[in-house]
Amino acid sequence: MSLVLALDFGGTKLSAALSAPGERHWRALERQASPPGADRRSDYEIITALARKLLGGARPLAVGASFGGPVLTKANTVRLSHHVPGWENAPLGAWLERDFGAPARIENDGNVASLGEHRYGAGQGVESLLYVTVSTGVGGGWVIGGKVWRGAGGMAGEVGHIRVKGDGPPCVCGSRGCVESLSAGPAIARQARAWLLAQPQRGSVLRDLVEGDVAAVTAKVVGEAAARGDAVARVVLEEAARALGIGLGSAANLMNPERIVIGGGVSKSGEPFWEPLRRAARETAMPEVELELLPALLGDDAPLWGAVALAEAALSEPELEEPS
Amino acid sequence: MSLVLALDFGGTKLSAALSAPGERHWRALERQASPPGADRRSDYEIITALARKLLGGARPLAVGASFGGPVLTKANTVRLSHHVPGWENAPLGAWLERDFGAPARIENDGNVASLGEHRYGAGQGVESLLYVTVSTGVGGGWVIGGKVWRGAGGMAGEVGHIRVKGDGPPCVCGSRGCVESLSAGPAIARQARAWLLAQPQRGSVLRDLVEGDVAAVTAKVVGEAAARGDAVARVVLEEAARALGIGLGSAANLMNPERIVIGGGVSKSGEPFWEPLRRAARETAMPEVELELLPALLGDDAPLWGAVALAEAALSEPELEEPS
Repeated sequence: MSLVLALDFGGTKLSAALSAPGERHWRALERQASPPGADRRSDYEIITALARKLLGGARPLAVGASFGGPVLTKANTVRLSHHVPGWENAPLGAWLERDFGAPARIENDGNVASLGEHRYGAGQGVESLLYVTVSTGVGGGWVIGGKVWRGAGGMAGEVGHIRVKGDGPPCVCGSRGCVESLSAGPAIARQARAWLLAQPQRGSVLRDLVEGDVAAVTAKVVGEAAARGDAVARVVLEEAARALGIGLGSAANLMNPERIVIGGGVSKSGEPFWEPLRRAARETAMPEVELELLPALLGDDAPLWGAVALAEAALSEPELEEPS
Repeated sequence: MSLVLALDFGGTKLSAALSAPGERHWRALERQASPPGADRRSDYEIITALARKLLGGARPLAVGASFGGPVLTKANTVRLSHHVPGWENAPLGAWLERDFGAPARIENDGNVASLGEHRYGAGQGVESLLYVTVSTGVGGGWVIGGKVWRGAGGMAGEVGHIRVKGDGPPCVCGSRGCVESLSAGPAIARQARAWLLAQPQRGSVLRDLVEGDVAAVTAKVVGEAAARGDAVARVVLEEAARALGIGLGSAANLMNPERIVIGGGVSKSGEPFWEPLRRAARETAMPEVELELLPALLGDDAPLWGAVALAEAALSEPELEEPS
């Protein structure tokens, strides 16, 4: 069997998939939620069990894995996970090589999703790409000069921690007014709930969608309500999109990438999200800086497709490249 | 004579210098202010006259030129100047080759200063570098993976147009709350004048330095007054430094460069500038993002030294590389 194994260690979801070199579809794919109280050991056991089920005893040509946290690429080792305990300095690449008998490469999820969109998705053919994902957090990754740019310490691509509002809300990173604190799903849900509580006469569509239970409002529901014209949902989504747009306009002034590709659940909220996003990015970018903002094409599969690219790199360049 | 010719077409100053390959000092250097009402023709005539004076009839091995505006590197052509009229689409590289009988390369000033500091200054030995200059404006340039990163349209490095304050003052770029509108020399002078006018009892050192003529306050004077403990000067400089620090912290989260080097007149204001700058950058950068902020080493000569590196590249790689 000539298949590569792609794995995705997400913060809350574990995925394994098989593809054949050159093909653009999955031969097989399995996903499983990471259980409550998950740790490094349980996540690794679940994902390898998914993979063995797909492989049915066969050996893959190579393994690529997306990891939700910083990775020491050259050492093929995880630095840490912010979501799942026990991952500090785990030699994940070596474990995968041992357990699947094939060369393995690992990479941070933002970087690998950027690679996936560049190779197989909305970033095909460009020389430089900023990939952004807006869901529970706001993350991303760079392709520069056709290659993944990881930064000096593997931390590049933290789009969510561009600070756009000096007096903005506190952010999980310790700073305040970051894009993530204003544009991620939890921020959208929080703002919508605050509006609904403060203005009992407004937001009828949004209220109906949660059957009056304001605490049940999520960013997804806000997106649905905005699509149906709910005024509160539209204002909340516009503010979130504007903060991201300001951050992306600043990023464009700083790096002038050929294209910016935006994925993640929040990006599926349609024009009530995209129109103010594009407008704020255009207002912030200098007039001479061209902006191309496109929706991601690979959806939740971007890290898995990036993992395929990693596995193929492991086949064609057996030595790990220097981190750069 | 085995010398390379380095030229700097600044917005207000024109410079020419000679150096020998491998040496770290100037064999000769001439500077001249760009006269009032200067245009493309007068600036070109002045700088070539300076160069001919230095060369004394000899032919240089190669020519490198820093240009204060966007450059189409592969076409060896200027895109435009924001300061001096008439430069639109000027084939500056070809003119220099014709007039000096040697291969010539041109590059935007932020990019070339970044190259200069990387090759000969405070950025030596690092894989990635963000160079920032804070004077009349706030500009900069990138070295990534050991090479100049120009961006898709030659616009990368516009550190001054990271937007750090949503409700900040209007910026020359058309946006508002940009680093440049808060941290550049004119912003510092404007803020200091506003404080002095609003608070007649404060800022005695600053007032003395301009002999009571508040309109004569410049960023340089603010720097001097801050060094002597003037409270108004310190507050103004701290606010300017904080805005830059927030922008640089965001840039570090986005790109994770190995080092950030800061030059330009305002950077010479000592600890009253550097302390709040470092603090704001550290508060804004994520805890996992290492920050190394260093003062530039080459001062006003950074573009000229970068031009030397360009000239040497013209000798070793006669074909213009693809812009990347």
